[in-house]
Amino acid sequence: MANQELTAAANPVQQNGVGPYNTLEWRPAAGGQPEALLLLDQLLLPHKAVMVACLDYLAVGQAISTMQVRGAPALGVTGAYGMALAAIRSAATRPDELLADLAIAGKHLYETRPTAVNLGWAINRCQKLALRLVQEGRSVEEIRAELLTLAKQIHEDDIRINRQMGAFGAELIPDGGQVLTHCNTGALATAGFGTALGVIRAAHEAGKKIHVWVDETRPYLQGARLTAWELHQLEIPYTLITDSMAGHLMSRGQVQFIVTGADRIASNGDTANKIGTYSLGVLAHAHDIPFYIAAPLSTIDLSIPDGSHIPIEERSVVEVTTIGGTRMAPEGAKAAHPAFDVTPARYIHGIITERGVARPPFNDSIKALFEEE
Amino acid sequence: MANQELTAAANPVQQNGVGPYNTLEWRPAAGGQPEALLLLDQLLLPHKAVMVACLDYLAVGQAISTMQVRGAPALGVTGAYGMALAAIRSAATRPDELLADLAIAGKHLYETRPTAVNLGWAINRCQKLALRLVQEGRSVEEIRAELLTLAKQIHEDDIRINRQMGAFGAELIPDGGQVLTHCNTGALATAGFGTALGVIRAAHEAGKKIHVWVDETRPYLQGARLTAWELHQLEIPYTLITDSMAGHLMSRGQVQFIVTGADRIASNGDTANKIGTYSLGVLAHAHDIPFYIAAPLSTIDLSIPDGSHIPIEERSVVEVTTIGGTRMAPEGAKAAHPAFDVTPARYIHGIITERGVARPPFNDSIKALFEEE
Repeated sequence: MANQELTAAANPVQQNGVGPYNTLEWRPAAGGQPEALLLLDQLLLPHKAVMVACLDYLAVGQAISTMQVRGAPALGVTGAYGMALAAIRSAATRPDELLADLAIAGKHLYETRPTAVNLGWAINRCQKLALRLVQEGRSVEEIRAELLTLAKQIHEDDIRINRQMGAFGAELIPDGGQVLTHCNTGALATAGFGTALGVIRAAHEAGKKIHVWVDETRPYLQGARLTAWELHQLEIPYTLITDSMAGHLMSRGQVQFIVTGADRIASNGDTANKIGTYSLGVLAHAHDIPFYIAAPLSTIDLSIPDGSHIPIEERSVVEVTTIGGTRMAPEGAKAAHPAFDVTPARYIHGIITERGVARPPFNDSIKALFEEE
Repeated sequence: MANQELTAAANPVQQNGVGPYNTLEWRPAAGGQPEALLLLDQLLLPHKAVMVACLDYLAVGQAISTMQVRGAPALGVTGAYGMALAAIRSAATRPDELLADLAIAGKHLYETRPTAVNLGWAINRCQKLALRLVQEGRSVEEIRAELLTLAKQIHEDDIRINRQMGAFGAELIPDGGQVLTHCNTGALATAGFGTALGVIRAAHEAGKKIHVWVDETRPYLQGARLTAWELHQLEIPYTLITDSMAGHLMSRGQVQFIVTGADRIASNGDTANKIGTYSLGVLAHAHDIPFYIAAPLSTIDLSIPDGSHIPIEERSVVEVTTIGGTRMAPEGAKAAHPAFDVTPARYIHGIITERGVARPPFNDSIKALFEEE
């Protein structure tokens, strides 16, 4: 269960060819070392780039709950590898025993971050596959191998999907425009390219001259720590701001485009995302600035009609009263920490997916995208 | 010029009888100790309550520019005591020499925080008084004494004015309501009671059951460090939030009233205040929540017709890239730090002053308040 640290320098990871750094990587068993899921420890960024090796699903769950890995799409891929590790490490000798172990692992992994739909979606896919294989009479070894294949497939799909979103979204960004984004939705939030930041990255790669305003994204500072780090690596011009500065910049005409990711999207387009996104939606609307969501179809939860059905995760208030381990508020201060908010569809100009851009009314346009499948 | 530290415990300060702590205090010369302006060092709050003694105007200027003391009304009182200290420490033997020294001191003090109108206002009053006394043929010693008397008068006036604002504003807050505020506008921002936080305090003292949402107020965290500390001392129920949570709470119906202070108000009611206030104005408007400014008449600058004439101070980006001395953003990250923004009058329901509440259209109502003089 112990996490093992390997420095990124000692293990240059370039497998996906999507950039100068990898968010996660599967390491096959070799030289007496067991299989492992390697994760770029996002708690140590931007100061150190260290890969952590998770040897079993409990270590994966711990990495998720402590936020060494975060971001909805990355959590989906991580969850799938976690299920593969659960199968590989399981002592089961009969398929039904393996299924029981996978049920325990799936429940454990799901509960580490209940708001992110991709995590549950990936775990579900793994469990469904295992069930089908058991019903088909396949061996424990075959099921293990198939689960790993599925995890790798979800991993590759995520990168391909991000590239597709990037291509669709890049067209929307005006050349010479100033783009504002919130939280981290780059390669670090995904398996390798990015959703909202992937759109920005694709626009930059397409030769558009853009400048990015990076919301620092309190309380967890994903913008200051991760998005600024990624833009720095990618050499895309950016300026870091506090979340409270976004409205001021809009009022001065210094923002032409806003794009954020999503943690869960309802059938009608209502979008749960990092706390602060809702305010951006209201401000964008007041200033007539295009406001887009970039998210893969797996983030859309067709089982819920609107945002009122999305549970809002309350995280530890210590993240509000302290910053980087330093206490800012007085001892005993009461604080709140809703980690997400819901932006109503009426503030959203479009949802950029891997199959194209859904436009209002979203009930119809989202359905149409799914029907292409 | 050196600042001298005296612990609050060793020097219990209760002179004003306005609460359990004093923001600033004049210490007369006694027992071989020279006169000094004592300031509660706000850089050390909420962890330590330490009084710093400023022995000359340069020390006062340093305390202002390093933000050991901050908040528009407190800066006014501090500036006046700074001018008194400049007169007391001046080596001038002739009134015209003293006037020249006061001109240098006034310029120096004014330039420490150019956005805050109260600072310039107080310095101006001191210089005008000195000029008049010189013209009347008064002695250097008399001028010194009169300047100290004026500083004490401005100090007392500030507390009285805050109490009056509190009484007018308290009536507006609904009993049982949830009130949101930004930055610090309490006793710590003034000479002793508070502007926006004074209104909240007066409502609490009047027996209204209220709960306060405290914006932490990045980048400088005046809310987390100072407002939370004050509410804690005053035993008023509060919850600390990040600035990005305010919109979410409004969307859930959890905010019934918003009140902030002001750094400068134009003739038409446009209000410059701590960065993030503008976003609150837009959000309050979108949610139909009463949004008030609480500020003394000295904050209103009748010389400017609207907010476009208010210079926005750019402060060090180190306050954005680091928090409490800890670097959060990558080395070399670009950042912006506009310290203030301007909320247009159309988002403001009323301006609570010591003479009553100005209502839109503000050009007329503000003029009427001044004419009562």
